[in-house]
Amino acid sequence: MALKAAGRVSLVDSVVEQLRAQLAGGEWAVGDRIPTEHELAEQLDVGRNTVREAVRVLVHAGLLESRQGNGTFVRSTADPHAVLSGMRHAGALDVLELRVALEAEAARLAAVRRDDHDLLRLRAALATLREEGDRDADADMTFHMAVVEATHNAAFTEVYRFFSTQVHEVLVAALGDAEMPPVDIDVHEALAGAIEAGDPEAAEAQARELLRVPMETVARLTGGDAR
Amino acid sequence: MALKAAGRVSLVDSVVEQLRAQLAGGEWAVGDRIPTEHELAEQLDVGRNTVREAVRVLVHAGLLESRQGNGTFVRSTADPHAVLSGMRHAGALDVLELRVALEAEAARLAAVRRDDHDLLRLRAALATLREEGDRDADADMTFHMAVVEATHNAAFTEVYRFFSTQVHEVLVAALGDAEMPPVDIDVHEALAGAIEAGDPEAAEAQARELLRVPMETVARLTGGDAR
Repeated sequence: MALKAAGRVSLVDSVVEQLRAQLAGGEWAVGDRIPTEHELAEQLDVGRNTVREAVRVLVHAGLLESRQGNGTFVRSTADPHAVLSGMRHAGALDVLELRVALEAEAARLAAVRRDDHDLLRLRAALATLREEGDRDADADMTFHMAVVEATHNAAFTEVYRFFSTQVHEVLVAALGDAEMPPVDIDVHEALAGAIEAGDPEAAEAQARELLRVPMETVARLTGGDAR
Repeated sequence: MALKAAGRVSLVDSVVEQLRAQLAGGEWAVGDRIPTEHELAEQLDVGRNTVREAVRVLVHAGLLESRQGNGTFVRSTADPHAVLSGMRHAGALDVLELRVALEAEAARLAAVRRDDHDLLRLRAALATLREEGDRDADADMTFHMAVVEATHNAAFTEVYRFFSTQVHEVLVAALGDAEMPPVDIDVHEALAGAIEAGDPEAAEAQARELLRVPMETVARLTGGDAR
């Protein structure tokens, strides 16, 4: 493979893409040991330092795992890089819709599982939101994280944290700070109330209502359909 | 900062973690230019090659962006690495629950938006599933991707692809291949029917039903609660 002809893209980047493609293509399964640095360097016709750097990138991406003195193994074939590029090519409406999926289910689960500690946090977050006003993104985020943490699901919490940052960035890029719709504090209050009352259907309905106005705003400003 | 004392963890890894923490902590916002290689090398008391390698890792993670001759900029502060570690520390039930959130909303949206092409793909995937039998993970995946693609939402499609790979890996790790519950072809059929009929509530209900048995199996085998 003539990776040396890659031109402006660095050799390391080329090797990273090559290995990503082999992982995505199922050439190695989870738990498999991949060829040694030496073998890969020969196969790809590049130096061992280049291979080492490329492997490091994929270790940090969570795809490979180096075990001291034992080689490099496939840790996962689920590539977060593809998710991020997908999100960037998707529109703001698409990304918001994804947030609805997470938010609605989190509200349902929170209504069933919340304990006293969760309720205290939720009420405190709501009080801050009311004090700080309807344009405080941090207070809003604290409230939503309190809802998600009341699901007592670690996977949900991490994914939600990731997407809410991502959604915020996509929205600011699409709308600019000035056009961001204000936070509707009454609906936040109603959501907290439904979770406190242990009513999953009402909690889900309020979570969906929360995102209705942002979605309509984005649809209007970007010329997309309202869905 | 005495990163040189990091011991067995390599210097590059230490610098990566340091920069990740600064990004997560909000030291730089999206669009900001971060300090030059030279400045970072001085601040962190490491060589410029070490900084260059660490920056490369974060470029591939989607957090930074290098612009030829212009420096390195913050592209996103949403760190996929945290999501992946979160997923790994979460239990199989938590991860399945997350899949329910995506699957249920995808089914609702697909029922509203599917076009003739989507319906053809869905029917073809169902036929393959019926032919290949209830233990064919690839045929199952093809069916679920056909549902998600009928949402016509690019963000959903990428995220679902990522999580279904991830969910499968977590399940196989928790249960082993032999204990994986078979695919319930009748429920898949009912889900496709609800999407074809344009009935979002029925589609969501079938999507939830699809994941009920896997969740019960995991709960039984891992000693978790059935939720």
